[in-house]
Amino acid sequence: MKGWEFTATNVPLKVIEKPDPTATEGRVIIEVKAAGLCHSDVGALNDPKWMDIIEKKPIIMGHEVAGIITEVGEGVTDFKVGDRVGVCPVSLVGMGPGYGYDGGYSSKVSAPAVDLVPIPDGVTYAQAAAGTDAGMTSYHAMFKRGGAKPGMKVAVIGIGGLGQIAARAAVVAGIEVYAVDVSPKARELAKEIGVKAVYEDIKELADIAPDLVVDYAGFGTTTAGAIDIVAPGGKVVLVGMGKLESTINTDPLILKAASLLGSVGGDKYDIAEVYKLMASGDISPSITEITFDEIGEGLARLERHEVTGRLVAIM
Amino acid sequence: MKGWEFTATNVPLKVIEKPDPTATEGRVIIEVKAAGLCHSDVGALNDPKWMDIIEKKPIIMGHEVAGIITEVGEGVTDFKVGDRVGVCPVSLVGMGPGYGYDGGYSSKVSAPAVDLVPIPDGVTYAQAAAGTDAGMTSYHAMFKRGGAKPGMKVAVIGIGGLGQIAARAAVVAGIEVYAVDVSPKARELAKEIGVKAVYEDIKELADIAPDLVVDYAGFGTTTAGAIDIVAPGGKVVLVGMGKLESTINTDPLILKAASLLGSVGGDKYDIAEVYKLMASGDISPSITEITFDEIGEGLARLERHEVTGRLVAIM
Repeated sequence: MKGWEFTATNVPLKVIEKPDPTATEGRVIIEVKAAGLCHSDVGALNDPKWMDIIEKKPIIMGHEVAGIITEVGEGVTDFKVGDRVGVCPVSLVGMGPGYGYDGGYSSKVSAPAVDLVPIPDGVTYAQAAAGTDAGMTSYHAMFKRGGAKPGMKVAVIGIGGLGQIAARAAVVAGIEVYAVDVSPKARELAKEIGVKAVYEDIKELADIAPDLVVDYAGFGTTTAGAIDIVAPGGKVVLVGMGKLESTINTDPLILKAASLLGSVGGDKYDIAEVYKLMASGDISPSITEITFDEIGEGLARLERHEVTGRLVAIM
Repeated sequence: MKGWEFTATNVPLKVIEKPDPTATEGRVIIEVKAAGLCHSDVGALNDPKWMDIIEKKPIIMGHEVAGIITEVGEGVTDFKVGDRVGVCPVSLVGMGPGYGYDGGYSSKVSAPAVDLVPIPDGVTYAQAAAGTDAGMTSYHAMFKRGGAKPGMKVAVIGIGGLGQIAARAAVVAGIEVYAVDVSPKARELAKEIGVKAVYEDIKELADIAPDLVVDYAGFGTTTAGAIDIVAPGGKVVLVGMGKLESTINTDPLILKAASLLGSVGGDKYDIAEVYKLMASGDISPSITEITFDEIGEGLARLERHEVTGRLVAIM
């Protein structure tokens, strides 16, 4: 099989060939149909801190995997050959695809059966891939960590792969949502999914003073700006790892008794919730499809903020 | 009356004379017996951001006030001349002493009756002064915002006026407490009040990974270090305003799903709890007494980190 391999910071991914994996105990082999491209992969390519996070090196990247099972290992009873599945990127048995074992920028993946989520009818592989990390993380941050509910004013920073799902899910739930993105195209998308207003910079929301800001970008200044403008007693949930440090003003945090809450991942039940919203048509994230060969350039496009919605490679 | 007056950033406090206040509707006149000196006053003298926080300028500083009522205004029924009272620095009717109205670095204060807390027998004026802002803020951050309870590992950064009260209250509650302070004297004090171990730098607690860190210093690096070492799912409560910005690593915050919670003030019921702990002898904060004339130099000593425990001016 071929795959886009990560070796170290500042070394571009390169396509390598290696033997196809075979199913070991408790794992299945998935023929990858779709793999989502994520901003954290761009981070991993540029920021040396990721060398400590990525457990196995070199590794085939790609932590948003959807496909069809072609082989099941010993002891796997819940899934069979031919099942359509997504892989939960937060593994119950170690690190997930693209971090702890070879991931989705490839034609085959060996994944633990305990981390699989069935894909319902009517959900495409591209949607299912975007529903794993982007969907799960996005949903978890907005509703579980952030506690978003009707009656609240909620700002979403970054209407990309994650933010668009959360923003739409919040709109569907009847919440007053404000969207912030540096990209005019992303702001257009936000309007289409029904947010109340769009902005270029979170600081423009000072007068709105949202009760909750979910920062799916995480570019340092976005988080700092969110703390400056959140309502007294409000929450800023930080998800995005666009930059791994932020210089925050501590006086508004203290004087407003505000909270900055890190949010990571979620679980396969979050993914199942997102798949349900996709199957009912309530959530239909904007997806830009590319080919396997375009993955390297796709990450470069993400870095240049040229992508609206989720970039998904179709194998 | 005389008082130490604040005019602007980088202008030392100076002693001024003005007419004694008289009791207006809903307020009482307190003959100040003790006034606590606070690190935030040092901050106000050095950091221009405080010009936005302090509502009335010029103003007599001092937000930890205890004394005896000498006059009651119209409509005041809960208090009478001769009552020993502390003043809640978080006012129910505007900003508190030293921020919204002339404060305790003086011989007389006009305070709203709704903000008063009776001082129990056996509690000195110096203790009562330290019990207002320092006690209330300290107690609130540890127990209400931080949710400290037995079974948790709790680190306290800054064993000064606030930290010592919280650290001792937590020890009394049967909690495993670790103390962090740059000053050897403060670390000695922490040992005396029964903490499990003392450290110079919060980063030394990486192996202990406390469930809760309460940062009463707030020197930027202390908060950043706390986020780096707190347990997965843990909380960092930020109270101290030693420096009004902090450059934090966002990856540990996100990947540990940790929380950074601003905590400010509390209410007069927090102060009443602290006064109870003082009256029973469970909490006896270390207090260094100075005179009215020494207030200016006292703030300079605070700035140079030369003070152990709370500095209180006795009038």
